[in-house]
Amino acid sequence: MPLDHDKSTDFANWYSEIVMKAEIVDNRTPIKGANVLLPNGYGIWENIQRILDAELKATGHNNMYFPLFVPEELLNKEAEHFSGFAPEVAWVTHVGDKKLDRKVGLRPTSEAIMYTMFALWIRSHTDLPLKVNQWCNIIRWDTKETKVLLRDREFLWHEGHTAHATYDEAVKQVEESMRIYEKLFHDLCLSYIIVKRPRHDTFPGADYSIAYDSPLPDGRVLQIGTTHNLGQNFSKAFNVRFQKADGEHEFVYQTSYGVSTRVIAAVLSMHGDNKGAIIPPKVALTQAIVIPIYFKGKHDPVNKATNEIVAELKEQGIRVKADLRDNYTSGWKFNQYELLGVPLRIEVGPRDVEKNQAVLVRRDNGQKITVSREELTQKVKEALEAVENGLRERAWKRLEEVTSEAKTLDELEEIYSDKKGIIRTNWCGDEKCSDQLKERIAVEIRGTKLGEEEEVFASCVICGNEAKEVVYVASAY
Amino acid sequence: MPLDHDKSTDFANWYSEIVMKAEIVDNRTPIKGANVLLPNGYGIWENIQRILDAELKATGHNNMYFPLFVPEELLNKEAEHFSGFAPEVAWVTHVGDKKLDRKVGLRPTSEAIMYTMFALWIRSHTDLPLKVNQWCNIIRWDTKETKVLLRDREFLWHEGHTAHATYDEAVKQVEESMRIYEKLFHDLCLSYIIVKRPRHDTFPGADYSIAYDSPLPDGRVLQIGTTHNLGQNFSKAFNVRFQKADGEHEFVYQTSYGVSTRVIAAVLSMHGDNKGAIIPPKVALTQAIVIPIYFKGKHDPVNKATNEIVAELKEQGIRVKADLRDNYTSGWKFNQYELLGVPLRIEVGPRDVEKNQAVLVRRDNGQKITVSREELTQKVKEALEAVENGLRERAWKRLEEVTSEAKTLDELEEIYSDKKGIIRTNWCGDEKCSDQLKERIAVEIRGTKLGEEEEVFASCVICGNEAKEVVYVASAY
Repeated sequence: MPLDHDKSTDFANWYSEIVMKAEIVDNRTPIKGANVLLPNGYGIWENIQRILDAELKATGHNNMYFPLFVPEELLNKEAEHFSGFAPEVAWVTHVGDKKLDRKVGLRPTSEAIMYTMFALWIRSHTDLPLKVNQWCNIIRWDTKETKVLLRDREFLWHEGHTAHATYDEAVKQVEESMRIYEKLFHDLCLSYIIVKRPRHDTFPGADYSIAYDSPLPDGRVLQIGTTHNLGQNFSKAFNVRFQKADGEHEFVYQTSYGVSTRVIAAVLSMHGDNKGAIIPPKVALTQAIVIPIYFKGKHDPVNKATNEIVAELKEQGIRVKADLRDNYTSGWKFNQYELLGVPLRIEVGPRDVEKNQAVLVRRDNGQKITVSREELTQKVKEALEAVENGLRERAWKRLEEVTSEAKTLDELEEIYSDKKGIIRTNWCGDEKCSDQLKERIAVEIRGTKLGEEEEVFASCVICGNEAKEVVYVASAY
Repeated sequence: MPLDHDKSTDFANWYSEIVMKAEIVDNRTPIKGANVLLPNGYGIWENIQRILDAELKATGHNNMYFPLFVPEELLNKEAEHFSGFAPEVAWVTHVGDKKLDRKVGLRPTSEAIMYTMFALWIRSHTDLPLKVNQWCNIIRWDTKETKVLLRDREFLWHEGHTAHATYDEAVKQVEESMRIYEKLFHDLCLSYIIVKRPRHDTFPGADYSIAYDSPLPDGRVLQIGTTHNLGQNFSKAFNVRFQKADGEHEFVYQTSYGVSTRVIAAVLSMHGDNKGAIIPPKVALTQAIVIPIYFKGKHDPVNKATNEIVAELKEQGIRVKADLRDNYTSGWKFNQYELLGVPLRIEVGPRDVEKNQAVLVRRDNGQKITVSREELTQKVKEALEAVENGLRERAWKRLEEVTSEAKTLDELEEIYSDKKGIIRTNWCGDEKCSDQLKERIAVEIRGTKLGEEEEVFASCVICGNEAKEVVYVASAY
């Protein structure tokens, strides 16, 4: 077992170990919470970018780049927004040895700077909808806690921002963003619940927020993406108005949504095991690793076959590499690429060369398949798909396993102390009850199920008064 | 003429006008020098990224992401490097309303933070070469002057950083980076001279710097890319050592190189005209715009043909769009897409539909070509190639035109007052002479020609003493 910590019994240490050993992140930097994304981690992000960018372009989003710098008076324009982010804003006060006349913030999100520009760009209903996407770094300097990929002071993300002529269009845009994210999470083989956050947990300045909560092995959940219907809150604060066809002026309706490098934490946590990471094929930097098995100096024929296989698979668009080093044993290499999470291993030994075959080994379940050279490419594609399906099924099964139902606080506490997870229960809608719950057993009301309105099945789990809605509670990162 | 300023007689104002009107940049942001890259500008950058990224990956570079934050003590480790960048470093001193224990700089370049990590990663000769690439934002806060894309306080770039076991390998790496950049500049249709910068103009901390200077229409030159052979200067400062096969320890040999969004300024300046931008096909967000010509209400057949053409060209991988709006005249649209720099226009009128044809109009020279529907895709590809070749030829002709030779200071001054440009002359190698030249006529010694050593053809153009080398002088941005 190459990892020192066990995933099921010691998730926190397993996680800290795997992000480093699977070469996802190096956190030995001089600034806590601002880490290096290593090739194996950055590769996941590049593939996420490729998937999302294609979907965003296909749905009419235009990529742009806005400044990192946001002056205080802009951040301040939407009061709720500002108070939500202010404690984590990093301020530039000096350049060289000179003090600036006014301090400048580093973007904790780009609403303020973007909508300042939207106000200049939008004049008429013919300018709408405006659909913008940005890929950038984001600074949220938590002065206390940091946790690799889960709570970084600097992270990478995409942020979509749109402006519309009607509230209905904004609602439709929220739905479009959700379809885009569901496509991404499908490719990442993640399971999740989609909830509408309660009012007190809505994005600062938004009408409502939709969020994706994915279960982690320790029973807690992780928010892996959000979409906000901003209504006219920001357009009023930033004076983003348009002239309608009838000549009247109105404030635009807005949405914003984002997915960050945090989602990599969910990918690692959901799929990894005690041998290392398991990276879903669609986002793996290396989808298949070919390992020649050397035997009594028979390097040449094995290397030749290995190189041919790599060339053939590359030709077919598969991200494949070979490890021809002879100062490492095959066994060491097996362990190493299992640790890195490469979803498929291809072994080529002298007997395989003789028999004109190769052995495929799936990373998710260790299954070995001997395939003839003729059908290799086809079988590799099938095996990668099988790994993907295997990971996805396991993830959704996991979600089912961690989801429970509680009618009373005692029930809820019992489930929570037993396995945590996501608990379906009832709430009166009062924030005080939510606070009480959090104080008592450290779980949060994550929100209500989206789409269908669920029928309450008991009284408020906290105060016992009449419940207004069915909610999902969990302990969150 | 849609532009208010003439390129040949008033380049500075023409440039300021075109970056905004061709929708490359919007500089109406609250922070001077930190602007918005608009879709038409960001699209160029995305295509540059695509071209460079493929070349960098093919040559074994691994993409990673390093922190934006660099503590002062790291920047300070290589003294010359630090003093070169210190005046432009933006410092974060506060988070929320709390003062940080130590101020943190924003990367003006990533040598310091990267090589701190290299020291942790490199142990043995088998770890070498290490070839890293990063795509990121860079902060160089010029407190005085800013100029859109030419001198921005925040800009985007790629930076390559490598470590090698021998000096020779570092030299070869410099050459590899040059081949990569020449491929990019070829696709951007830019002309340039490649020079080795004089000692006093070398990158702070480098052994020597190779740079590309591209001529701008006002007779000045613009550095569009650089490669530095860092020797062991940084590896000694950051203690990046490796064990050789013979067991001895040695400091690694390093190189770094970068190309930024500044290159977009060269693209606009080199190719644009008084009608607007001309964007080289390989990097244009939109390569071809299809404009239906409406006539007496015959919208349907024309729109149908337009949509078919768009679908067919998209299928062939051409970045094409149609403008079907009927509240704008065809003439207005022609002007608009010329302004934006779309390299090819495709006109489809009712008679074209009847005759089963379309009209292609090249942006670079206005040439019209009537083509049958059957051969449309082929002809569009040919026309885009022709535009590219046309731009490239013009650019290299331009370089020839602006290059002169001077034996004496009088000659040099006369050429300079006449047309500026790049002047080939002789230098004794003394920095004082270089300073004198700069004071007297505001031109800089840009460097010596790379590769062949040129024979001096007169005495030092400044002091009259024996010349040591042939140098190229110019006024630079």
